[in-house]
Amino acid sequence: MNLDKLDNLGLQGGLVVSCQALEHEPLHSSLIMGRMAVAAKEGGAIGIRANTAVDVKEIKEQVDLPVIGIVKRNYGTNPVFITPTILEVDELAEVHAEIVAVDATLRARPDGKSLDEFVHEIRTKHPQLLLMGDIATKEEAVNAERLGFDLISSTLVGYTEETAGIKLYDNQFAALKEILTSVQTPVVAEGNIMTPEMAATCLEAGVYCVVVGGAITRPQQITERFVSEIAKLKKPSPSVQ
Amino acid sequence: MNLDKLDNLGLQGGLVVSCQALEHEPLHSSLIMGRMAVAAKEGGAIGIRANTAVDVKEIKEQVDLPVIGIVKRNYGTNPVFITPTILEVDELAEVHAEIVAVDATLRARPDGKSLDEFVHEIRTKHPQLLLMGDIATKEEAVNAERLGFDLISSTLVGYTEETAGIKLYDNQFAALKEILTSVQTPVVAEGNIMTPEMAATCLEAGVYCVVVGGAITRPQQITERFVSEIAKLKKPSPSVQ
Repeated sequence: MNLDKLDNLGLQGGLVVSCQALEHEPLHSSLIMGRMAVAAKEGGAIGIRANTAVDVKEIKEQVDLPVIGIVKRNYGTNPVFITPTILEVDELAEVHAEIVAVDATLRARPDGKSLDEFVHEIRTKHPQLLLMGDIATKEEAVNAERLGFDLISSTLVGYTEETAGIKLYDNQFAALKEILTSVQTPVVAEGNIMTPEMAATCLEAGVYCVVVGGAITRPQQITERFVSEIAKLKKPSPSVQ
Repeated sequence: MNLDKLDNLGLQGGLVVSCQALEHEPLHSSLIMGRMAVAAKEGGAIGIRANTAVDVKEIKEQVDLPVIGIVKRNYGTNPVFITPTILEVDELAEVHAEIVAVDATLRARPDGKSLDEFVHEIRTKHPQLLLMGDIATKEEAVNAERLGFDLISSTLVGYTEETAGIKLYDNQFAALKEILTSVQTPVVAEGNIMTPEMAATCLEAGVYCVVVGGAITRPQQITERFVSEIAKLKKPSPSVQ
């Protein structure tokens, strides 16, 4: 039933653009994120991922695309920060995000609840929501499938202690392909997808859709990639003394 | 003397980010362009190119980078629209753009003045300005050098009737290289530079600096490139019936 609901959102085979700017970033502003979403839609995006209820609200006023909502919030030193508790889910449900993405790793959560309890809590309180599990490993993907997540996203590959140093695109997206072969649940490719070619590679590998963020909506990151490439020209090659 | 003044701006070998959003674009707003400039600086840009005096003013309040100012303005059906007359130069001088870029093609200008007269007018009225000539052909580059432009930019390659259909990057940047071999004046690479590798190629070819716009600051264009690449997957190849 949820699979039909998911299919009705029209995300399959398409590009979701993540429009996020945290407090310390130059584009931090719900107004700007709303305009970013309009730009993404003009360019052909079929969905938006966004952080915080205020941004989701503004974006939903600007574009009629399905929104994957998250709330990044830190609780003390606990490393689980993507929609870590029911409080953040409540905020996103209130502004009508179609999908809510939550940390679905096997790490201890800040409220002391298990992931099983958290999912049960969300399904009971917000049965209308589609649920995306942001994970970092094959084991976490299998566990998220067992818990009935509607979508499983590779968002956290490289961003947990266990996977530190890995980039999603390493070895022709080996980590992503391992996840794909481990579950039947639709898998979303997200994390360090920097070029159109990388996005196409992920879809060819069998993901349900691709989420691209920084490479489209973080001009400071894009500038940095240009500047890094230019900097290589300035370093004399080691063979030339 | 102007060459010293130019060198003091520190643009040589670096990346200038063009922060522009025209009225019909989703990010149209001086506030947003100011934030874009901050993002560009954070990423390592060493200069900003911007359209309209209000945007230049806002950007100069946000970042301490040299600004190449232009005013895009249409006069009837005349195709010369990048800082076409002294009026636009006055506006940019007023907000202290360090460099003003003007259309330096050989086309008839909307005010009926020749390019020679226009340059003379600018040098007399605004001797403090550095002058960039936006051109489309080798002949126009040679002419701009004769007129004493401080910088010559490939901005209009592909965007004049004579060069329609050409992309700056065609045949390993053949048009740009032809310009480089024709003049001694510093040449700026600008127009359709979409990847870090392309920017590096231009600098290796000998340009003074590189200007990148859409690939960094127009999310709708970047999204479109991702979506186009994805669309290729959906078309069955002609050999598979």
